[in-house]
Amino acid sequence: MATNRFDPDFTDNVIKSMGPQTPERFREIMTSLIRHVHDFARETNLTVDEWMTGVRMMNWAGQMSDDKRNEGQLLCDVIGLESYVHSISKYTKGGTNGCLNDSLVDEITYKLAQEAEDTPTATAILGPFFRPDTKWRQNGDNVVQGVKGGEMVFMHGRVVDFVTKKPLVNATVEMWEASTNGLYEQQDPEQVEHNLRGKFKTDEEGRYYYYCLRPTPYPVPDDGPAGKVLKLMDRHPFRPAHIHIIATYDGYKPLTTQIFDSKDPYLTNDSVFAVKDSLVVDFVPREGDPQAGLELEYDIKLVPNEIHASEA
Amino acid sequence: MATNRFDPDFTDNVIKSMGPQTPERFREIMTSLIRHVHDFARETNLTVDEWMTGVRMMNWAGQMSDDKRNEGQLLCDVIGLESYVHSISKYTKGGTNGCLNDSLVDEITYKLAQEAEDTPTATAILGPFFRPDTKWRQNGDNVVQGVKGGEMVFMHGRVVDFVTKKPLVNATVEMWEASTNGLYEQQDPEQVEHNLRGKFKTDEEGRYYYYCLRPTPYPVPDDGPAGKVLKLMDRHPFRPAHIHIIATYDGYKPLTTQIFDSKDPYLTNDSVFAVKDSLVVDFVPREGDPQAGLELEYDIKLVPNEIHASEA
Repeated sequence: MATNRFDPDFTDNVIKSMGPQTPERFREIMTSLIRHVHDFARETNLTVDEWMTGVRMMNWAGQMSDDKRNEGQLLCDVIGLESYVHSISKYTKGGTNGCLNDSLVDEITYKLAQEAEDTPTATAILGPFFRPDTKWRQNGDNVVQGVKGGEMVFMHGRVVDFVTKKPLVNATVEMWEASTNGLYEQQDPEQVEHNLRGKFKTDEEGRYYYYCLRPTPYPVPDDGPAGKVLKLMDRHPFRPAHIHIIATYDGYKPLTTQIFDSKDPYLTNDSVFAVKDSLVVDFVPREGDPQAGLELEYDIKLVPNEIHASEA
Repeated sequence: MATNRFDPDFTDNVIKSMGPQTPERFREIMTSLIRHVHDFARETNLTVDEWMTGVRMMNWAGQMSDDKRNEGQLLCDVIGLESYVHSISKYTKGGTNGCLNDSLVDEITYKLAQEAEDTPTATAILGPFFRPDTKWRQNGDNVVQGVKGGEMVFMHGRVVDFVTKKPLVNATVEMWEASTNGLYEQQDPEQVEHNLRGKFKTDEEGRYYYYCLRPTPYPVPDDGPAGKVLKLMDRHPFRPAHIHIIATYDGYKPLTTQIFDSKDPYLTNDSVFAVKDSLVVDFVPREGDPQAGLELEYDIKLVPNEIHASEA
């Protein structure tokens, strides 16, 4: 992209200004950031007014953010950055959906996935509505309280070792979802605290099971800079219906993901780009259960920590 | 930078998500921004934790910003972005310092500069301490009130047409500078309002003149994310001593610039990268003036609006 139109040394001089005490990883990140930000400005011939509009959006995002809302994160989400960061260094060459957690090199992932004719459960973004203090519940509990409308689902499955397929006993499965009005409990004064979320332990067969809502699509908050950017990009703010899941087990890579309803109209145009084919699920009719008319079976395949390059 | 390691279509899909109603210029800017932000994440193998650290810095910048402080702007400044945006589309091929304002094509600038063996006054960044409501003062006024220490300067010069060299009568020269404690008046409860700033009209010979302080170097505010980034980059927060100037005249490109003291120790490592060689000035001793022991003569060369490509 080098041209003679602008001072050819400017960007290098900014990068070289970093002193010898700069931590190596920080230097790596800043070098790339400075280069790309300058290239972006040059390629677009960015004007001072346009740049200041961006600065105001950034400051506005911070001013809107608090312990219940992270607008800076949402701004990144609508340009696909959170999803992208989730995918990089985890992408499996063998298919479009196979994603592993950090630190497994792609080659190993690929090899494993090929040998197994299968892939571990794919990851998806955490999103801004996770709570670290989610309550423990018992298998069979109903996480839905006082919600109007919506369809009840009996969701169940196993947490298994991706390699051996053995069930993992006492693994943790954490879930959260929005209500039928599109709001998570912490956004909605009408919902009881901890509504529509819970933490479960798998039983001696590696099973988890609970009653929850069939999720409904909802818009991301669009009264801030992220909403403004979406509107200018002529895009809708909707996310396809989904349930958030985090699964953890000692000795295994923790998994953060979302599963999506195959019937959702926003499946192909999620406002935050989190959908992956392998995370799309079918809710099927359930007979003879007065608590739920639908059922969802979903197994979670975790990857052991001890898979290293040297063993592959 | 394309690699097969990651979903090769992800970035294109995010860009393609923009709808048909997206304003053309916004589409251009977002296309480049999305591509560079994703490339940055991929090149650095950015982790979710690293990305979230960035989001927190961005939100923190917004939360620190108010009508007296713009931390988002400062964050851009310490990675050279404001200076860079100021330079692009204005750089003169013929030299390292010749910079014109917007909208003059480089070729014309270059031609003019070559013919004139001279360049118009270079631009520099506005910075966050400009006030749109600066008070009018009379030529010969002293903008310094109640400042302890420091050296007084008689600053004077002409505003001229860059092409004809004719003086511009009744042109506006606006100046502002920090006090000896490194603070601008709006940052400092000890200073009277409008201290160390003023707006002047040139006289019938195109002259402006006033008494001001010899500027002193000062650190940019370093108690926020910009300071944190500077510290991590092993850089000092100091700006070389400078006086901000805006000069305007009907029918001419408005000029925003800064002039720098040639004796300043931070001249080669300005924390916000605003120094250009042509903006470095010498303060010289002044004899027989009880109001000032130093003098600075500085002419400002403005470019007429009516220079168009067709005339060059």
